[in-house]
Amino acid sequence: MATPDPNPLLVDRDVDFLLHDVHRATELCALPHFAAHDRETFDLAVGSLRRIAREVFFPSFRATDLAPPQLRDGAVELHPAMKRMFAVLAEAGVLAATRPESVGGQQLPTLVATAANAYVCAGNAAGAGLAMLTTEAAHLLESFGSNALKARWMTALYEGRATGTMALTEPHAGSSLGDITTIASPAGDGTWRVRGAKIFISGGEHDLTDDIVHMVLARTDGAPAGARGVSLFCVPKRRDADGGGTVPNDVTCTGVLHKIGWRALPSVALSFGDRGDCHGWLVGDEGRGLAQMFQMMNAARVGVGASAAATAYAGYREAVRYAVDRTQGRGLRSRDAKDPQVPIVAHADVRRMLLRQKAIAEGALSLVLATARLADLSEHAVDATERTRARWLLDLLTPVAKSFPAERGFEANTLAVQVHGGYGYTSEYLPELWLRDQKLNSLHEGTTGIQGLDLLGRKAVAANGEALQAWRSVIAEAAADGRSAGLPSAWCDALDEAADEVVALTFELASRGLAGDPEAMLAHSADYLELFSTVCVAWQWVLQAAAAKRAQGLDEAFVDGKLRAAQYWLRTELPRVKALAALCRDAEDSYVGMHPGSF
Amino acid sequence: MATPDPNPLLVDRDVDFLLHDVHRATELCALPHFAAHDRETFDLAVGSLRRIAREVFFPSFRATDLAPPQLRDGAVELHPAMKRMFAVLAEAGVLAATRPESVGGQQLPTLVATAANAYVCAGNAAGAGLAMLTTEAAHLLESFGSNALKARWMTALYEGRATGTMALTEPHAGSSLGDITTIASPAGDGTWRVRGAKIFISGGEHDLTDDIVHMVLARTDGAPAGARGVSLFCVPKRRDADGGGTVPNDVTCTGVLHKIGWRALPSVALSFGDRGDCHGWLVGDEGRGLAQMFQMMNAARVGVGASAAATAYAGYREAVRYAVDRTQGRGLRSRDAKDPQVPIVAHADVRRMLLRQKAIAEGALSLVLATARLADLSEHAVDATERTRARWLLDLLTPVAKSFPAERGFEANTLAVQVHGGYGYTSEYLPELWLRDQKLNSLHEGTTGIQGLDLLGRKAVAANGEALQAWRSVIAEAAADGRSAGLPSAWCDALDEAADEVVALTFELASRGLAGDPEAMLAHSADYLELFSTVCVAWQWVLQAAAAKRAQGLDEAFVDGKLRAAQYWLRTELPRVKALAALCRDAEDSYVGMHPGSF
Repeated sequence: MATPDPNPLLVDRDVDFLLHDVHRATELCALPHFAAHDRETFDLAVGSLRRIAREVFFPSFRATDLAPPQLRDGAVELHPAMKRMFAVLAEAGVLAATRPESVGGQQLPTLVATAANAYVCAGNAAGAGLAMLTTEAAHLLESFGSNALKARWMTALYEGRATGTMALTEPHAGSSLGDITTIASPAGDGTWRVRGAKIFISGGEHDLTDDIVHMVLARTDGAPAGARGVSLFCVPKRRDADGGGTVPNDVTCTGVLHKIGWRALPSVALSFGDRGDCHGWLVGDEGRGLAQMFQMMNAARVGVGASAAATAYAGYREAVRYAVDRTQGRGLRSRDAKDPQVPIVAHADVRRMLLRQKAIAEGALSLVLATARLADLSEHAVDATERTRARWLLDLLTPVAKSFPAERGFEANTLAVQVHGGYGYTSEYLPELWLRDQKLNSLHEGTTGIQGLDLLGRKAVAANGEALQAWRSVIAEAAADGRSAGLPSAWCDALDEAADEVVALTFELASRGLAGDPEAMLAHSADYLELFSTVCVAWQWVLQAAAAKRAQGLDEAFVDGKLRAAQYWLRTELPRVKALAALCRDAEDSYVGMHPGSF
Repeated sequence: MATPDPNPLLVDRDVDFLLHDVHRATELCALPHFAAHDRETFDLAVGSLRRIAREVFFPSFRATDLAPPQLRDGAVELHPAMKRMFAVLAEAGVLAATRPESVGGQQLPTLVATAANAYVCAGNAAGAGLAMLTTEAAHLLESFGSNALKARWMTALYEGRATGTMALTEPHAGSSLGDITTIASPAGDGTWRVRGAKIFISGGEHDLTDDIVHMVLARTDGAPAGARGVSLFCVPKRRDADGGGTVPNDVTCTGVLHKIGWRALPSVALSFGDRGDCHGWLVGDEGRGLAQMFQMMNAARVGVGASAAATAYAGYREAVRYAVDRTQGRGLRSRDAKDPQVPIVAHADVRRMLLRQKAIAEGALSLVLATARLADLSEHAVDATERTRARWLLDLLTPVAKSFPAERGFEANTLAVQVHGGYGYTSEYLPELWLRDQKLNSLHEGTTGIQGLDLLGRKAVAANGEALQAWRSVIAEAAADGRSAGLPSAWCDALDEAADEVVALTFELASRGLAGDPEAMLAHSADYLELFSTVCVAWQWVLQAAAAKRAQGLDEAFVDGKLRAAQYWLRTELPRVKALAALCRDAEDSYVGMHPGSF
């Protein structure tokens, strides 16, 4: 069996196109916060991770999958390549890249960092996971921690001398974070004693750094039930000893999960305070733990979406490579068995599978970048109104940017396997590995079902509908831009009409909620998420098609590919919006009213 | 982590309902060929495999996945459980169950055997694979082999003293069987010398039986290029020695593939005649190899569909079990965090995921059973016209019964993982294993793309449209039956309209082919397969809903579940037919005209 040639992971020309032509990264340099940056510093940042992804991450992709970490005597040993990947990222300053110079960062826009990170996610998503967790744990301390906590841990995390975790989930509570039972009791000296069990803690134990900093949600003694009673604690694996040095902090790894994908990144069960000696430090205010943790959860959601888009993209590129190389069969008109066989890319159905992957992968990546750009504007736009508007849009797009790449990305990765024929299900080729990795993305950091409820139940009806109207305006601008760029007016009209449909539907559903019937409003939240996502990706394809038409210096084949992918999405997927909206509107009741005993 | 309770695999009441109320199995007993059978013998056959599936197959499901066979010194050692599963099936007479009494069989209808086999496929698909291959290899000898070959091998296979393979695929040719290069040269004594390499040969080497009988496609010396030059040979692993006993027949196992699923069943690369001493025996006529092999391939395709339906079904049942047990979160109206958490089946989106799985899994199984019933009628109906009609329908439904359960079944298995939340991607639970197993089914025995071309390019236009008109009549009967059973007329009308749409579309596309433009006819064969399949499954749901309404003694919850699944499919999926038909009709050209360099 052939060993695949190096996969380029992402197409550089396309990433540059998305970053600069579609999402106008350098415009951000006009904002004071990014004033030190320009196209050159952006290209350096992207170029650095491109190289790292290809030279360090991707070569270890199969090896790290084949030898997942095991728990031995309470310790978890990482694959050596996992250590090397993290070290290289830390050395390149990636962990604090988006953070302010005041904390040792580079003030790089999240937009640019997201594009750069997509390469390492494509090359080895499990290897990229620890870095994301470490950055965001430090970011929580930066935002909400005391000066003492910042001094002790924040910089250590940003410099990669420690790694971070998000320790939220408990075995009985899953997504229902208001129901956690881990307890923190005041020790009287300003510290707390933490006791409880957590599960699914990525990077919760390993031998990469001595220090691991757990960001733990716990309930303080006597706190009210539910989300209001949850606080955030910083709980290191080892704490400082009175006489200098460090001692174990009574955090025990009790199990390692065996996973279908992301196998190299240990996902563990942790027990805090078995001996009553687990010290924790309150981060921010008591009772604000969940609200504060949403900073990390939202970043992680967009991060998962970016990783999912990258995973779909890498599989897609591998499928293209295979389809161009592999010969089999002949054209439909060939009647002579002595004709040479043709590359399978010549078959219409193979081209269909490739174009569908392209539409999903590049559409998803573009959507994630649009979301990342809003994160930049929501914090650093000069005008307060613009910041508010960007925040609405960021909040609205986060569940979409998380779930679309995960759900449709899984479909794309499935098609990459399919293009490989029987070889696709063997480990002689890589698509089955990207497929397995992708399966986690619809589950971790909030399942797709949670994203649907978040979108329709909160985000789409936020600010009395102003958030959604802001979204509608952005779509209208894109459609207008598409018309002026010379795209078929049918495409732009279809986008506008679909967006109108979304707005009308949302208000209709919201009115049911306001009338006291949340079930009728939310019964089809999955269909709503699907149709909303479909329109968002259509928006991204109109943006890309318009930019491709306008951009100078792009070769014809590249432009043609973008236009065809846009056409494909608008013709094949956008028409589904009406039917999905009808299901929401009619409150089609097949499953809603189903008795558990009828399954 | 909890160990799952035993999974019932399939719901017995439902299998009985499908077999008897929907597909009227006992009506077959009116045919002379099945005259020895009655409800009791059918129930015995199904009951036997039910028990075997639960007591022998399912308990080894995880264990056989965890320890896939390895190649050592040219030999492949099976997991002991694989040997036990095959032995139990052989002992129960399953291998020859559908074959005539004259060859040692039970003359059991394929319909009944398929329902019974679904249990073992649900319990351990890899374990069931060897039996299917063995039955169909013997069946090839029964149909086309000389008396000598039958005497030497057929009975050995039917009794499980040997196992069979289908040795078709070669590394360079894949699905393009006309391009194989394995050569058979006459030895002058009535035998042939075979030389060539095959790949993806399931069960091609193992230590379960001494004898393995390979059914090999090869090209005879001087044969014309393409499919016409391909002949079928029986090539045993060991051949009879002149002085008695057996000697190795120069068949070498050169590799074992590592697969994402069906891991316990070795899929190997074989080399025939490295030493010029591989003896083969011609089966049937020279140049008829491919035509004859289609008997096995078609049976294997429906067999894969049955296995895929069973795999989806088992995952679905596991998801139901989990959703009823697992508590998490509260109703949308709950504002009190002290309320107890509810079972997740209470959440609308979980019910949606379950009902979608039900609609797919039970719809797929019903479709496979309809196809199996046609296999019985095509051979054993008394009236020649009825046999011809059944053959048309069987041919037409085969690509659908193969691909729908594989493609949508994969989606169902993905939802079973999703219902399990984060646990879904861990190997502490079984859905990830059914998901991995399912991934093979869209690839082996003809990819979905091949099925689409077969359906639209051959089957739907067979017999000058008479085959399709026969299908249309069957759908009309079902719709009429639904009306008389009291189903909503909107459902039955929608089914009729969709079927009309299919017929009109098919004739329009066929006219393009007749006009000399096969590309325009077949460009959207995947969309055609999708819409055709959607209508076929809608047909099955109308049949099931009507039968549920009519049947006596079924509990209300069961009937309600069938009606809701029917409603779900008709409301959610059937409306997609129009949009898909538009893509076919308009010959939407995004990917068709795409240059390889534009991907």
